[in-house]
Amino acid sequence: MKKVVKFGGSSLASAEQFKKVGAIIHADKDRRYVVPSAPGKRFSQDTKVTDMLYQCYELAVKEKLFTEALAAIKARYDEIIQGLNLDLSLEAEFKIIEEEFRAKAGSDYAASRGEYLNGIIMANYLGYEFIDAKDVIFFDEHGIFEADLTDKVLSATLESIERAVIPGFYGSMADGTIKTFSRGGSDITGSIVAKAVKAGLYENWTDVSGFLVADPRIISNPEVISTITYKELRELSYMGATVLHEDAIFPVRKEGIPINIRNTGAPEDPGTMIVKHTASKPEYTITGIAGKKGFVAINIEKDMMNSEIGFGRKVLEVFEENGISFEHVPSGIDTLTVFVHQDEFIEKEQRVLAGIDHATSPDSIDLAGDLALIAVVGRGMRETRGTAGRIFSALAHANVNVKMIDQGSSELNIIIGVSNNDFEAAIKAVYDIFVLSKL
Amino acid sequence: MKKVVKFGGSSLASAEQFKKVGAIIHADKDRRYVVPSAPGKRFSQDTKVTDMLYQCYELAVKEKLFTEALAAIKARYDEIIQGLNLDLSLEAEFKIIEEEFRAKAGSDYAASRGEYLNGIIMANYLGYEFIDAKDVIFFDEHGIFEADLTDKVLSATLESIERAVIPGFYGSMADGTIKTFSRGGSDITGSIVAKAVKAGLYENWTDVSGFLVADPRIISNPEVISTITYKELRELSYMGATVLHEDAIFPVRKEGIPINIRNTGAPEDPGTMIVKHTASKPEYTITGIAGKKGFVAINIEKDMMNSEIGFGRKVLEVFEENGISFEHVPSGIDTLTVFVHQDEFIEKEQRVLAGIDHATSPDSIDLAGDLALIAVVGRGMRETRGTAGRIFSALAHANVNVKMIDQGSSELNIIIGVSNNDFEAAIKAVYDIFVLSKL
Repeated sequence: MKKVVKFGGSSLASAEQFKKVGAIIHADKDRRYVVPSAPGKRFSQDTKVTDMLYQCYELAVKEKLFTEALAAIKARYDEIIQGLNLDLSLEAEFKIIEEEFRAKAGSDYAASRGEYLNGIIMANYLGYEFIDAKDVIFFDEHGIFEADLTDKVLSATLESIERAVIPGFYGSMADGTIKTFSRGGSDITGSIVAKAVKAGLYENWTDVSGFLVADPRIISNPEVISTITYKELRELSYMGATVLHEDAIFPVRKEGIPINIRNTGAPEDPGTMIVKHTASKPEYTITGIAGKKGFVAINIEKDMMNSEIGFGRKVLEVFEENGISFEHVPSGIDTLTVFVHQDEFIEKEQRVLAGIDHATSPDSIDLAGDLALIAVVGRGMRETRGTAGRIFSALAHANVNVKMIDQGSSELNIIIGVSNNDFEAAIKAVYDIFVLSKL
Repeated sequence: MKKVVKFGGSSLASAEQFKKVGAIIHADKDRRYVVPSAPGKRFSQDTKVTDMLYQCYELAVKEKLFTEALAAIKARYDEIIQGLNLDLSLEAEFKIIEEEFRAKAGSDYAASRGEYLNGIIMANYLGYEFIDAKDVIFFDEHGIFEADLTDKVLSATLESIERAVIPGFYGSMADGTIKTFSRGGSDITGSIVAKAVKAGLYENWTDVSGFLVADPRIISNPEVISTITYKELRELSYMGATVLHEDAIFPVRKEGIPINIRNTGAPEDPGTMIVKHTASKPEYTITGIAGKKGFVAINIEKDMMNSEIGFGRKVLEVFEENGISFEHVPSGIDTLTVFVHQDEFIEKEQRVLAGIDHATSPDSIDLAGDLALIAVVGRGMRETRGTAGRIFSALAHANVNVKMIDQGSSELNIIIGVSNNDFEAAIKAVYDIFVLSKL
């Protein structure tokens, strides 16, 4: 089985971390394709190399002196090289980078050098072949990732290479310009490589022992999710839970390649398996809880609305015309509520309200702001009777006023609206009832 | 205070019933404007006069002999007249009706004679003035009720008349053609009269002691709702609970005139007050439960749907183009479920599915049929924490699988989707927990 292993910035911040990573890779001969990030923070006040590169390039663009800033970056890499006792010099590379900065090669180019250089070190350290991502990962002239072309070139390239390091985060456009994914994009590179080599597993090594049931800023020491489906993960990610870059799911999802989130600092932990399907019974009824603050509910009332064909469509069209995407549209009899992001809505508020008024002549429109949405997600909820009852009893117990409930027929999640102020209490209550009390 | 009193068909089916009605009217001198229905059933196998009229007119239209059928109708009225010892003959009236039937005056004309004749008897019996509804209630050339014209003429007419009987159910178009409301439309006439005379109360006398918390075919001897708001009533009516014609709410609602549902057979019962607003604390947390069977859920999944502006609008547009109104649109992350009436959907199913496919290119579309929707309605739910928790715990306890939950920000109702087979059990469970156990 081929495994693709991606390591995050904190896993590669220092020589010491590199050694841990090396040990992990050598512990399993299937770990044949390695995707490194740029060096992250060595300690909490430290600066990530990617940020140093952006800052340095900014100086270059403003035609200010940037040699010192660039030397500081080089020092970071040299520290790693020396700590690993490698026979490697990045002098020539930094010469080129300095020239390109002077020629204003672009901030994507600048940022990408973090992964590029780390990839060179990693390949040297492991004795793996180095493959520049610009030669195998492609973007079109609008900067849109070209999945098919990339897959073709990448799989052909790697077919003949037993073991390789492919730096994460970037690729190139047809004219050779370097283009990056959005921040955290090394996750995507790993996923693309996994797809291209038809990997049996995509290991994503980071600084936590997996995907957590709830946000650790709200729940102290939350449990780790042992197995989660792509679908559940997408739902939790959408609602704010982050470990993996959202777009990293799609390439492997199509192929059904599982992703294993692992902790470089605790390689003995099994981490979280992200899979397409699973018959494995989840440990708790719910798989995870996530949420976001900052929503507005626009509540529209009109007598006989329920008998008016096209009413809902007309309302949604007003939001669409104003470029606002809606989150949920719970409805009663003759009432329709539209949940949208407060920051998207606020500046267009009056235009939207006037538009709804004009399009539908409602009896009344009410606004309620400062709302939060919480998604309680879990494939186990379908099989377990009474999940909704337990959730809402727990929320009542915690004095949380439920403003909105939305559960479609997938029965994979329940979306709950509460006031921003009740957000943390609501998440705690749901966590407690299902995870601590194991109900 | 002026009161408008409307009596249903069963309250006026016989001379004995007329006497009860007379006693009720005379017991309160404010009961100045009376709106009678046509005579209903005297016993369960009996035929309503309105149905006799439709059947008789059908014979006339087919140019078959209908004199015997008409004589049977006359006999119904004569029985009442004799029972009341009135000095009144309907000979001349029936002569005109016979001629009009022969001239094929329309089935609306035919049906309206039930109320018309009952109104004449009622006016004679009470010593009130008789006002033919055709002279005060108007429809336009498309048969649409003309609210403003009616209100103007009716209020002007009744200003100078202390006490009057106005037969329910019908009015006339500009050319004099008789036009009826839909079946049960005497409720609407009563509401229109109440509005025109600025009544303090609209009493609607029927054969039940008020609006029931739940359907008596499902719950034996359900409690009577003492006070319900127009809004709650509309919600329960929409979901299938019937006592009052749905359109009867609108004329009085605008004026804030309360409706009192009363029982002719038990005039001492206070019945149900239907009001615009009330500070009265409801006896139970919920005001009522109602529901309907026969829905289909169309569940649409697409990756990144939540980030696609216009997705929901496109889906609803397909239903609109096919003339199908949706009931609810619960959504998760990247899933959208549309609930529609099964009978409306079934014949257009393939066209709708193809339309959704074409408009939105979803990853998958699932259908789930034979679903029921239940509305748990109550202004008390807003103040009571944990209502949702109790509902869903009760449903779990009753082994009911909850397929959908929809609660908007009005917090006046929760809509629950269950399978048709669980419909009765779900209603029982909710009734038990809130009404029997008074939780």
